[in-house]
This record gives sequence, C-alpha cells and structure tokens, in this order.
Amino acid sequence: MKKFVLIVITFLLSVSSFAQSEDSILIKKISDEILVNGKSYENLRYLTKQIGGRLAGSPQMVKAEQWGLMLMKESGGDKAWLQECMVPHWVRGGKDMGEALYNGALKGARNLLLLKKSLDILALGNSEGTRKKSLTADVVLVNSFDELEKKKDSVKGKIVFYNYKFNPTYIQTFRSYGEASQYRGAGPSRAAKYGAAAVIIRSMSHSVDNNPHTGATRYDAAYTKIPAVAVGLKDADWLSQQLQNDKIISVTIKTNAHFLPDTIGHNVIGELTGSEFPDEIITIGGHLDSWDSGEGAHDDGAGCVQTIEILRAFKAIGYKPKRTIRFVLFANEENGLRGGTKYAEEAKTKNEKHIFALESDEGGFTPRGFGFTVKEEQFQKILQWKPLIAPYGCSEFSKGGGGADIGPLGRTLGTAMAGFTPDSQRYFDFHHARNDVFENVHKRELELGAVNMAALVYLVDKYGL
Amino acid sequence: MKKFVLIVITFLLSVSSFAQSEDSILIKKISDEILVNGKSYENLRYLTKQIGGRLAGSPQMVKAEQWGLMLMKESGGDKAWLQECMVPHWVRGGKDMGEALYNGALKGARNLLLLKKSLDILALGNSEGTRKKSLTADVVLVNSFDELEKKKDSVKGKIVFYNYKFNPTYIQTFRSYGEASQYRGAGPSRAAKYGAAAVIIRSMSHSVDNNPHTGATRYDAAYTKIPAVAVGLKDADWLSQQLQNDKIISVTIKTNAHFLPDTIGHNVIGELTGSEFPDEIITIGGHLDSWDSGEGAHDDGAGCVQTIEILRAFKAIGYKPKRTIRFVLFANEENGLRGGTKYAEEAKTKNEKHIFALESDEGGFTPRGFGFTVKEEQFQKILQWKPLIAPYGCSEFSKGGGGADIGPLGRTLGTAMAGFTPDSQRYFDFHHARNDVFENVHKRELELGAVNMAALVYLVDKYGL
Repeated sequence: MKKFVLIVITFLLSVSSFAQSEDSILIKKISDEILVNGKSYENLRYLTKQIGGRLAGSPQMVKAEQWGLMLMKESGGDKAWLQECMVPHWVRGGKDMGEALYNGALKGARNLLLLKKSLDILALGNSEGTRKKSLTADVVLVNSFDELEKKKDSVKGKIVFYNYKFNPTYIQTFRSYGEASQYRGAGPSRAAKYGAAAVIIRSMSHSVDNNPHTGATRYDAAYTKIPAVAVGLKDADWLSQQLQNDKIISVTIKTNAHFLPDTIGHNVIGELTGSEFPDEIITIGGHLDSWDSGEGAHDDGAGCVQTIEILRAFKAIGYKPKRTIRFVLFANEENGLRGGTKYAEEAKTKNEKHIFALESDEGGFTPRGFGFTVKEEQFQKILQWKPLIAPYGCSEFSKGGGGADIGPLGRTLGTAMAGFTPDSQRYFDFHHARNDVFENVHKRELELGAVNMAALVYLVDKYGL
Repeated sequence: MKKFVLIVITFLLSVSSFAQSEDSILIKKISDEILVNGKSYENLRYLTKQIGGRLAGSPQMVKAEQWGLMLMKESGGDKAWLQECMVPHWVRGGKDMGEALYNGALKGARNLLLLKKSLDILALGNSEGTRKKSLTADVVLVNSFDELEKKKDSVKGKIVFYNYKFNPTYIQTFRSYGEASQYRGAGPSRAAKYGAAAVIIRSMSHSVDNNPHTGATRYDAAYTKIPAVAVGLKDADWLSQQLQNDKIISVTIKTNAHFLPDTIGHNVIGELTGSEFPDEIITIGGHLDSWDSGEGAHDDGAGCVQTIEILRAFKAIGYKPKRTIRFVLFANEENGLRGGTKYAEEAKTKNEKHIFALESDEGGFTPRGFGFTVKEEQFQKILQWKPLIAPYGCSEFSKGGGGADIGPLGRTLGTAMAGFTPDSQRYFDFHHARNDVFENVHKRELELGAVNMAALVYLVDKYGL
C-alpha cells in the first residue's frame, strides 16, 4: 500500500512538474512574442498622438471606438463588435482661467501693495463653471473637512481652498489617493452647504511640478452646484503659505464647464471563442475614455493597448483558448462608469457565465503584482501559479483588487476579479494632468504589463478558477 | 514536560514577535524620516547641476569630493575623512565628431549619389582618439565576434562596426548588458588583432532615442590601441540597414581622447562608530565618479545621495548603531576601480573586520530587491528579515550580487556582500549617456531606495550576520 501511494505521488508530482514546465514554456513564448514583436507601444502612440484625449461624448471618443474596433479585428479576434450605451457629455468649454490678487507688501509695511499672480487652474470633471462670467471672492484655507467644520461660519460667499496633502509616508500611492480624493469628490458640495461660492482643490499628487490634476467631482443635489477647480502643488503651496500669514487673497475664476445632453458611446469588444468551454467567459480590459487635459496615455491608454496586445500575442503564437476570452475597451470610466455598467447588465440579461475578469487601469508602469477579489480557495489556487509569473515581474499577489469597469460584473454576477498592479510611484505624477502623454510611457514597462496579464489569463483559461 | 516545552515555545514566539514588532516600528520611523524630511533629492540636484559629470581626475571630481566630505559631516558622521588613492586621468579632449559618406542613389541606379550623414558618436572611455587628425575608412558590419572571425581577412584598414543587439527577451536588463558589454570591453582589441583601423559599437540600451552610450574599453597590450566610439540605436540601425544592402559606407571619425598622467583622487568616508562592537564594520556605498557625457545622476549620483541619506536618517531619528557603519563614496569606479581597491587594501593592512558591505549602483529606480553574496546560513538568516523589508518595495532576495566597488573587499577579506537591485527597465536608457541627468530621477523612487537599504543595514547592525 505504501509503495502504491508512493508511486501515485511520484506520478502526480511528475505530471504536475510536466504541466509546470509546459506552462513556463508557453508563458516564455508569449513573453518573447510581446517583447520582440509587440505592437502596444506603437498602438499607444497612435491613440495618444493621432486621437488624443477622448472624454465620453467627444469627437475623439468616436474616433477611438473606430480605432479600437479595427484593431480588435486586425489583431485576430474571432468576433469584434461595439456595445452601445448612453454616456454623459461634459465639456470644459474652453480654457480655464485663474488669477490671485494679493498684498505683496513686506510684513509690517503700512500700505498695501496689490499684486496679481496667475494661477494654473483646471476645472474638475462634471463641475459647473462660471460660464461666460467670472467669479471673484476671498479665499478661505482648510486643510481637511474637520477644519471646514470649524470654519463653516466664515465661508459664505468665499472660495474654499482644500489643501489636503497627499500623504508621503504611505508606500503605495493609491492609498494616499484613496484618502485625498474625497476632497475632489465631496469637497464642492460640502463647502456649498455652508454657502461657499466656489472651491479650489490641491491636486492629488506627489509630483514636483505645478500641473493641475482634474478628475470627477460629485455634486450633492441638496446644494448649489458651485464651480470647482484644481491647482497644482506649487500654486497650492504658494496659496497656503500666503494664507497662513493671515494675508487676504482674492481669486478670480473663469471656467465654462457644463453638461450637454447624454449621447451615444460604446464598449469595444473583441473575442476569442473558447474551444472547450465557450460558455465560460474571461474578460480582460481597460477603459478607452480619458480626461481632456492630457492624452490619456497611462490613464488608460496603457490598459487598452495592453488588452489588444494580449489578443494579438495569443493569435500570433497560435494559442487557442479553451474558454472564451473577451478583450474589452470600456466606455466612460472617468465620469459615469456607463460602459462597465452596461457590460454587466447585458451579461446578466443574457445569463452569461463570467468566471474571471482582469483590469489594467493603474498605468503602464513596471509590473509588480495583482490584487484579487476571489474566494479563498480560488486565491490558494492562484498562489500556486506565482512561481510561473513572478519571473516576469508580478510577484506580489494580494487580496482585494479589481477595477472600476469590471466592478459591476463582480457586484452583479459575483465574478472573480483581479486588478493588475504596476509600480505606483509615478502614476499620480501624470494622473488626469496635461503631462499624461505618450512620452511618459516606457516601451518595455508597458509591454511587460501585457506579458504578466497574458500569463495570468492563460493560466485561468487553462485551469479554470 | 510537554507543558514546559509549550511554555518555552510560547515565550520564544512572543520574544520573537516583540522583536519583529520593535523592528517594524523602527523601520517605519526610518521610512517616515526619509519620505517626509529626505534630503537625497536636493543633494542629487546639487551634485548633478552644480558639479555635473565627474570623471576621475577632472576638476569636478575634486569639487565632488569636497561636497561629499562636507555632507558626511553635516549629516552627523562621528568621523569623516578622505582616503587618498591614485586615479587614472582619461580625457575626451573636446567634442567627438562622426560623419558617414554613402551612396544615396536608388537601387539599380547607374550612377552614385554620394550623400553625407552626420553620426552622433561618443568615444569609449579609456580609448585613444584620432588626436588632431581625422580617420576615414570603409565600414565592415559584424553582428557578433563569430561574424568577426568569419570576416577577419576583410577588416584590415577598415572600421569594424559591432552591431550586437541588446537582447529584448531577457526580463532583467542587466543580463542583456552582461552579454553586450563584452563588445565594448574587448571589441576594439579583437578588431585591432586583424588590422582594423577603428571600431564603432552599437550602444548597450533598449532606448527609443539616438543617444550614444560610452563606458570603459580595455585594450589588449598585444595590439594597436585603435580609436573606438559608440553610436546610438537609430544611427546603428541606419548603418546596419545600409550595409546589409551591400552598400559601401565610409565613415570619418575624429576624437581627441587620451590619457594624462595618473593623479590623486579620494574615497569619501563618513562613519557612525559602533556602541557595542565598534570593531565590526558595515560598509554602505556608491561611487562618486561618473562619465563626462551626462551628469551621472542615476550612475551613480543616486547611490551616493542614498548613502548619505541613510547616515542622515539614522542620526535624525537618534539611532545609535551597535556596530560601526561606514558610508563610502568610492572613487574611480568607471575606469579603474582604484577607490574600491584602495578601500579593501587599507582594510587588509589595518586588519579590520568587515562583516557586511552593501552597494547601490543600479540607479535610483523603484526598489525591487537585493542580491546577496553570502554564506548559505547567512542567506537563511537574511531571508527571515524579508517580511520586514518587503512592504517598502524590496521583496526579491536572490543569491549572487554585490557591486564593483565592494568587490575587492569581498575578494580580499571574504566580506558578506549585497547589491541593491531597483527595477532595471529604465537603467540602460540613461547609463553612460548624455541623458543621465537629474530630471530623469524620480524623487520618491530615489528615497524608497534609501529606505530599503537603511532597513537592511539596520537589521544587519542589530542582529549581525
């Protein structure tokens, strides 16, 4: 009996080691294909330089959808189609203008010395601007919501300046963002509640430049929709320094931001149909829309071209998946999530079986790991694959993670989810700012992201979850 | 008895968990100090912008040594001194010039259409130039040493162009460098052996630009010291494409590179003297010299300012090491290794006990791990520390590693060594090229390198090796 057990164990070990070796050979093949013949970098160049920023509802959105559809076909999808959804249509409506008027006299000087300083401002996404007029008011500095509560009686008719700082002591920058972004989201309405005329937000970034970073705000319907703009870190430091010296600063803001009626947008979907289990669907994607301030290179052009690259590489090496793999460029992640919502709705309506979804929306940086929102036994299964993927850069497998666009799928169908997590140090230097451009994406880092995601998708396809 | 064993185990576990918690608190304190009050980025700005490239023997070398000594004192070293050593004194002697003359006629055209193209060349370090004259010869393309052997009868009087490509399929770029750099090192003499007049080397890089990358070559005394220059990747691709079409290309090279007599240089050393075991020395360092083509920001300004930052942070949080910690900015790593050699020589002469040496010379990029050249039992001990360091970025602990400057210490005294390994994808975009400048170093990535190294040094200091 013991001998039999030993034989069985030996047999199982050799099968498992054969499978491991087969897997590592296949993954190396994917990696070589992407690193030697990869198209993601040149695809990103086209998306960013020929199409550019592509906010939901913009003409660039339409161009990007057509570009994506064409690439899904060219890259070898068995099927490729557009999935229609209504999207919000917010427009900046021209260049935002900001200017500070302040007392530049030396401390203790008798007379005022009124000076002007131009402020580099950027209206928050979904915000209502000052329209054709301009808005001028004194500024009240608050470093947190707690401080706003303390100063609530003195903000009426004023511009509230939220100077909440990105926490430098967190190693993961997304943790700092999680804390700071509440000021962008809820700050305008919380200030409007106390009668503020407008808000200025310190940009959510560790950057060493002065670029303002936009991003969606959410008005609470109970209060006036007041104008809301971001300033870069240098202007924020200047403003706070002036105000801490008890100086009075008045700021003039002019933005023409507003909503137009909802319009038609699309998710772009390519598919490799499964050979054994065509009804089991694996989704991999990023979002096609981006803010208008930059070119949407890291956010999320990178995720889009990586998604297409995985399709291309699978076809190029002749890999035929057992399960159906969907490659999705989601619509309208930034200011509505209508694409991700639509994708999950249709999946539910059609009673589709979605076993796994993977999103890349943290930039095209060097790979570090994946975050998984899966059942414990699934996580244990996935952990066994780590030695196969780690040599390509993703060695940090953690619990929790996914992505905004695949979130509705997880919530609606309970689909197992993962988010690709590249290195986070540089992401918020570019996020939603004018320097989120092609030149700031590194060819090999971008490609290695695709390699690691392809390896994970291959393993889920082969072994299921 | 069982109960007693249980009690002992429980006690040991609680002691160990208390120590772990104490260590994690101390490491967090170091991290916060560096990420909130760090000086490494501004120190690097000064070194690169106010002093600049600082090749051994140059006036900038002298300035950099004085700067380093001052900072070792300012940052709180118990002692700080200069350790003298003779260094080679190679000079570029002016701007290198390259030009190609080629037939620009369409294929099959009857007549020649001679065109000129400027080549962006950079003489290899330690090379002998053409001096006041220029050198013109036809170019012979070889993609490897094997090809050189096949073409050895046709290179006499010609310029050999080594077009060996950086291997894109290796995930770690240092592996590609290890293979490619033999052409820079041995290429000139191997071509001179067959009578070549000069060599051109394809730069060792995955970059998407055309910057040529210099670096040291080593002449074999048996053959003529022929001029040797690097070209960037675009020029290399152009040259190889032309030559593969069987066109004849003659290239003119003019470089004034040459050696002056050896001169005096110094290792810059700061020290925190150990409180319990002052005779046990831990060394941490980078090299102060750099090539003249750029500002030596990643190579190895980063390692220098990280070294000084660890000293500063230890003092700032009031950490008093048990063992003696030496912070060393080594002289002349790039083209002689005289600093590292001198440091080891003196350690041997004085019979010093060097228990550990750590080097940072792979750029100021986001941390990934350490490579260790230590005994197996030491490696097992170090592996137990991984959970304490991994949250700060260094989770890849591998065998093998160290650094050029600490190498002599390892070889002479058998000192346990480690090399800090940040992410390698971007390093060879800048390495020895004119774009190795301050602007290409990221503040937080630089600081996180110092955090991870400080954590490792703290643990070695506390627990020994």
